[in-house]
Amino acid sequence: MADYYLYTPGPTSVPEKVRKRMAEQVIYHRGDEFKKLFTRINKNLQYIFQTSQPVLTLVSSGTGGMEATFVNLFSPDDTIISVNNGKFSARWVEMPRALGLKVIDLRLDWGEAPTAAQVLRLLRKHPQAKAVYLVHCETSTGTVTDVRSLAKVIRNNSSALVCVDGVSSIGALEFRFDDWGIDVCVTASQKGLMLPPGLAFVALSRRAIRKFSSSSLPKYYFDFKKILNSYRSEQTPWTPAISLLMGLDESLKMIHSEGLEKIWKRHKILADSLRSGIKKLGLEILSKNPSNSVTAVLLPRHIKSLEFHNHIQNKYGCIFGKGQGHYASELFRIGHIGNVQESDVQRIITAIKKTLNELK
Amino acid sequence: MADYYLYTPGPTSVPEKVRKRMAEQVIYHRGDEFKKLFTRINKNLQYIFQTSQPVLTLVSSGTGGMEATFVNLFSPDDTIISVNNGKFSARWVEMPRALGLKVIDLRLDWGEAPTAAQVLRLLRKHPQAKAVYLVHCETSTGTVTDVRSLAKVIRNNSSALVCVDGVSSIGALEFRFDDWGIDVCVTASQKGLMLPPGLAFVALSRRAIRKFSSSSLPKYYFDFKKILNSYRSEQTPWTPAISLLMGLDESLKMIHSEGLEKIWKRHKILADSLRSGIKKLGLEILSKNPSNSVTAVLLPRHIKSLEFHNHIQNKYGCIFGKGQGHYASELFRIGHIGNVQESDVQRIITAIKKTLNELK
Repeated sequence: MADYYLYTPGPTSVPEKVRKRMAEQVIYHRGDEFKKLFTRINKNLQYIFQTSQPVLTLVSSGTGGMEATFVNLFSPDDTIISVNNGKFSARWVEMPRALGLKVIDLRLDWGEAPTAAQVLRLLRKHPQAKAVYLVHCETSTGTVTDVRSLAKVIRNNSSALVCVDGVSSIGALEFRFDDWGIDVCVTASQKGLMLPPGLAFVALSRRAIRKFSSSSLPKYYFDFKKILNSYRSEQTPWTPAISLLMGLDESLKMIHSEGLEKIWKRHKILADSLRSGIKKLGLEILSKNPSNSVTAVLLPRHIKSLEFHNHIQNKYGCIFGKGQGHYASELFRIGHIGNVQESDVQRIITAIKKTLNELK
Repeated sequence: MADYYLYTPGPTSVPEKVRKRMAEQVIYHRGDEFKKLFTRINKNLQYIFQTSQPVLTLVSSGTGGMEATFVNLFSPDDTIISVNNGKFSARWVEMPRALGLKVIDLRLDWGEAPTAAQVLRLLRKHPQAKAVYLVHCETSTGTVTDVRSLAKVIRNNSSALVCVDGVSSIGALEFRFDDWGIDVCVTASQKGLMLPPGLAFVALSRRAIRKFSSSSLPKYYFDFKKILNSYRSEQTPWTPAISLLMGLDESLKMIHSEGLEKIWKRHKILADSLRSGIKKLGLEILSKNPSNSVTAVLLPRHIKSLEFHNHIQNKYGCIFGKGQGHYASELFRIGHIGNVQESDVQRIITAIKKTLNELK
């Protein structure tokens, strides 16, 4: 495939500048050059999360990053509350259970976002809850959760940690770790950071860091104590994914140079334009609270998912995400996150319009 | 730094062809193109390990790959035997203990390799041992363990699994997973496979796979059941490190085209030549059983480690590994693994010779 456009909600398109940097010879991770690189990256990561707290870098997918938060903050039989409104949030119910935690899940229909009242009710019913896990943008449905308001409610009514899956939001949707009182936020490299997958990032508040010492779940590779100790001397305890970090250095520079608030605004403008174009085609958007980074669109009933994806990819070079879970054959998902411009939105709308006509 | 030569024992030099492939736009991991790529990679990985058994690919460093073996095969308080003759083997004592296992360690001096008699004595003393962990090449000392003979002894005298850290051996030293009766072997991307770090690979025997069902250690991200299920349908359960897999596809093709036995032979010839050159310079090699992939050399007492590394890097462009653990300032370590030729050996010897003269 020579010419195609990657509009999946991860991996997202990697800018040429970033790819060129990753094609350079790797550097030695125990030398001075690496220290300089890592220090620069860590500073820029704090900017992306809007925090003065440490942001740890792990070699893993976002799922690994989320696991790291569970095993470092909690002990067997600790209770946590986890919103469950899509494929990924469901994983943050299943995973902590597999790791030995008690999980109260706030089950919502796919496409719905949790309200402050719903979270508050659960917190009052389970005052022993050590944390509330929220998904900022649920990638399977393109639904955004009002993390800012919910964090306030959680902070005002409990001592539970506010933990956020920011995988398809960080670097695209407004997010302010310090100002909003977030304790934990995880993201991954292949979304707003415009990199290939392979890295996870975890921002941690002072409250969260204090939990390390009481957590008794077994861990080693993901041990935040070890990772934070190394971080403080600009190092990593295990061999880092050097080429991805070199690429990250470039993409963080690009983000810094455009400016985070401008990037959030660009994502909002493009999402508005995309949603309006999709509605004009007579299509329905799944989410009741749609995200500015991912849009899940219901396929017209007479069109088969496989046929749609093959046609739009082969004829128009547009690669979208498939539906997931019980929506596997009913949805297509468009990633408009990271390296996207208005020309992409126009290409997407035109390709969908023509494909729907041609598959009639 | 424009011109330098990466002779650390990991990361190793990444061939241009591989770097160019990694600079291509990432592909979607839930599409057909990825399935074809992953199927081809998996077949070639079996060749590298000399096995017809599955080789699982994880997004993690080698340390993550090792942790995955502990949490999938064992339960709390299970006993394992682990050889302890260097920095990495010591980690395979510390890590399983942190994860809740009982570890009997066979402590040897750094630079020594375990004998069959030593392993047999421990196996007889601890017949409940569920596994013996060996490090094929201990990267901190450049010491090779006779995995083939030890595996035979372990198999003939116990039901313990034979588990091998093959991080700095696979793709460089002779290794035959099936023929030698190995149960578990872990390697990582940044050594003999000539890639940047970020991927771990785990080959598993039928006996090892049968252990999954009885293991009760908590796991999710590294859950081999989930990973093996996905593997069987040419998929990964979590987002894979796509650009590294694209590079791996190239490097595995290069290995296939040169031929594994020829590559083992090349490493032997280069290592012989390097060791002979080093001895001619009057330097001492640490290991009593030196590996054909990594050589740890004792620095003359009058030369400071930092001075040596800075000089040879800045003047001759040669980057070596530093010493580790209690040998931190006494050793330098040369990686001659993966993408290396006779010209590299000559460059290394000449650079050391001149550096020693210039620092006199």
